Amino acid sequence: MTRWSGVDLSGGFGLDHLPYGVLTDGGGRSFAAVRVGDHAVDLGVLTRDDRLAEVFVEGTLDRLLATGPSTWSAVRELLQTRLADPDRTPAVEAGLVPLSAVTEVMPVQVGDYVDFYASEQHATNVGRLFRPDGDALTPNWKHLPIGYHGRAGTLVVSGTAVSRPDGQRRDPDGTIRFGPSTRLDFEAEVGFVLGGRTDMGRSVPLSGSRDHLFGVALLNDWSARDIQAWEYVPLGPFLGKSFATSVAAWITPLAAFEHAWTAPPERDVTLLPYLDDAGIDGGLDIRIDVSVNGTTVSRPWAAGLYWTSAQMLAHLTVNGASIRPGDMFASGTVSGPEDGQWGSLLELTRNGAEPLSLGSARSLGFLEDGDEVVLTATVPTATGRLSLGECRGRIQAGGADVGRLAVG
Amino acid sequence: MTRWSGVDLSGGFGLDHLPYGVLTDGGGRSFAAVRVGDHAVDLGVLTRDDRLAEVFVEGTLDRLLATGPSTWSAVRELLQTRLADPDRTPAVEAGLVPLSAVTEVMPVQVGDYVDFYASEQHATNVGRLFRPDGDALTPNWKHLPIGYHGRAGTLVVSGTAVSRPDGQRRDPDGTIRFGPSTRLDFEAEVGFVLGGRTDMGRSVPLSGSRDHLFGVALLNDWSARDIQAWEYVPLGPFLGKSFATSVAAWITPLAAFEHAWTAPPERDVTLLPYLDDAGIDGGLDIRIDVSVNGTTVSRPWAAGLYWTSAQMLAHLTVNGASIRPGDMFASGTVSGPEDGQWGSLLELTRNGAEPLSLGSARSLGFLEDGDEVVLTATVPTATGRLSLGECRGRIQAGGADVGRLAVG
Repeated sequence: MTRWSGVDLSGGFGLDHLPYGVLTDGGGRSFAAVRVGDHAVDLGVLTRDDRLAEVFVEGTLDRLLATGPSTWSAVRELLQTRLADPDRTPAVEAGLVPLSAVTEVMPVQVGDYVDFYASEQHATNVGRLFRPDGDALTPNWKHLPIGYHGRAGTLVVSGTAVSRPDGQRRDPDGTIRFGPSTRLDFEAEVGFVLGGRTDMGRSVPLSGSRDHLFGVALLNDWSARDIQAWEYVPLGPFLGKSFATSVAAWITPLAAFEHAWTAPPERDVTLLPYLDDAGIDGGLDIRIDVSVNGTTVSRPWAAGLYWTSAQMLAHLTVNGASIRPGDMFASGTVSGPEDGQWGSLLELTRNGAEPLSLGSARSLGFLEDGDEVVLTATVPTATGRLSLGECRGRIQAGGADVGRLAVG
Repeated sequence: MTRWSGVDLSGGFGLDHLPYGVLTDGGGRSFAAVRVGDHAVDLGVLTRDDRLAEVFVEGTLDRLLATGPSTWSAVRELLQTRLADPDRTPAVEAGLVPLSAVTEVMPVQVGDYVDFYASEQHATNVGRLFRPDGDALTPNWKHLPIGYHGRAGTLVVSGTAVSRPDGQRRDPDGTIRFGPSTRLDFEAEVGFVLGGRTDMGRSVPLSGSRDHLFGVALLNDWSARDIQAWEYVPLGPFLGKSFATSVAAWITPLAAFEHAWTAPPERDVTLLPYLDDAGIDGGLDIRIDVSVNGTTVSRPWAAGLYWTSAQMLAHLTVNGASIRPGDMFASGTVSGPEDGQWGSLLELTRNGAEPLSLGSARSLGFLEDGDEVVLTATVPTATGRLSLGECRGRIQAGGADVGRLAVG
């Protein structure tokens, strides 16, 4: 099927995909939708007269996330059945809107957001740059998925402009300065949206991950490398990350990944039972493309991530930390073994020392004001590949350049 | 005034205090209240027929937090006027309930929670224990308030039982084990509740802190030292903290601290302008008492914190990170210069090497199941001292002790 109700389905948003989002129309009305090609279908209209319509009456995805896998399956089946039913076409078309006529907003209200560090190649690349005299990987790296909490309140939907952050840095000569970050970077990541709820004191075992993994969205963990390098010892990333994190507007439900599961990399150490996924194809074949101002600069491949989504969720909750509907976690930067597969400028430019060429007019060290970063990705399906919703953001100048005085 | 409507006001909860909380009654009704002695007054009843009543119609503090300092002042003035007005006594008493008849719940819905590391003594003590071969303080420590994001979803109200977390640790012989934490600790902290909202890209300067600092609550940042020590390099604390953080049920409004502001410690380095608080009495004279099973084990004094609440807020937002009503940040462990003033067992017992005596029957290294930790504190007022709402929590055994197999 390449066309449906006049909509071109060839771009990876066919009826086998159906990612979820939240939109506002010109009148300011907010509604939950699924994407079909370059159009969206209002879920309130599409589910009308079914008992599942109540899930979408608030115009958000919150109620859907608060349910669980049986409702997620039932909703998906209802949507696919109705979209494919020619008798329903007139009714369905009443809820069909071109994306150009609506505004995409944050698809979920995120309670807690955790960022992991699941790519061995990324952790190795960063370790070599930040700690040149030590081992690239810390001793714990292969025993547990390292992660930290990020700022949920500054997760923004794809398309939101990102202001260059001000902050402290220490220059190579030891001078401590304040001002706009001069080493602003992207990080190409895979984000996971959680549904359902657990009680404190309970964990989600590997075998229970499908009860809570609702879907996937591309994510750009913008990073100010100069702020980060100065602040992060001993308590980890803080202001170097918390100014903004961009999230795709469309969440691809886990059911659409049926043909994308792959074996994770071979494990180099024996894992504790709660992380031991021997024999489980927990990896995801997600091929990412990172472009800056329209030029592809990297093609990270998520199938190579050392830690899987099920392992990250099991670790996140093994201490009894509870989860709430709409919580998110992300993979950390996705970097493959080749340097054309690295997911950050820190790695691609060797910490700025070897700028990339962006066509003839521009060399790219770190991001400049006006630069636009777009993450896209494809995933195998039964008949081809679907496209994850893009994650787009453009850098703009930050606040008044005040207080930029050197001390020490 | 030592009695009011038959209520004993001598315990530090007089009419000059009036902390805010949220309660549920036996019928499950939830309502916002102020505390007076060992009673609470329903704010819906107390503000009835005033235009400010609309702030409390939802039975929460959410609307109050969403306003700003002019409304906070107007509400406080209305409450104090009505509570002191003998003509209103019968009406006010209709909303008066003994605390023994209600249940305290989380007073705010916390969006993002940040934990700082503002005590020089604590950072020095921890640095010496965790990094014995390096400098106790990291080079950045006196230039910026170090902090990290914690898990907002596991903030729990005082009185909630805390399950001992499971997790990974590395034993001194290098063996990696999984099981219940064997080094469970408390951290006595001062929490700050934020009100109002800022846009992304904006910061809150030192001079603007009163626009957003709504109030103060004692906080216990429970910490599993064995899990923390193994996981925290390089991205900071994660599962060693995220299982539970206890927060007092009563938030003392900033207005009640009028007589508690003090000069912070002398600064050893020149601060960047956005943190330079020369001449500002930004410290708070909060004297904390930490007891375990009824025996006082420490008396931390928050006036000695190197970084003030205004500096922490200025730093948290200087990169343009936005804040939302109900966001919180905490001071980090409050430790004074004497060892009887240290705010964690890690410090008090020299990492477990020198257990404390808890009466004749018990030596205290780290916390055992059944141990109860209570934080209380007093703050000077015009006529005496007020008492902050206590922060209480008892340790209970965690989940099934499964998977406790050694590897490596």
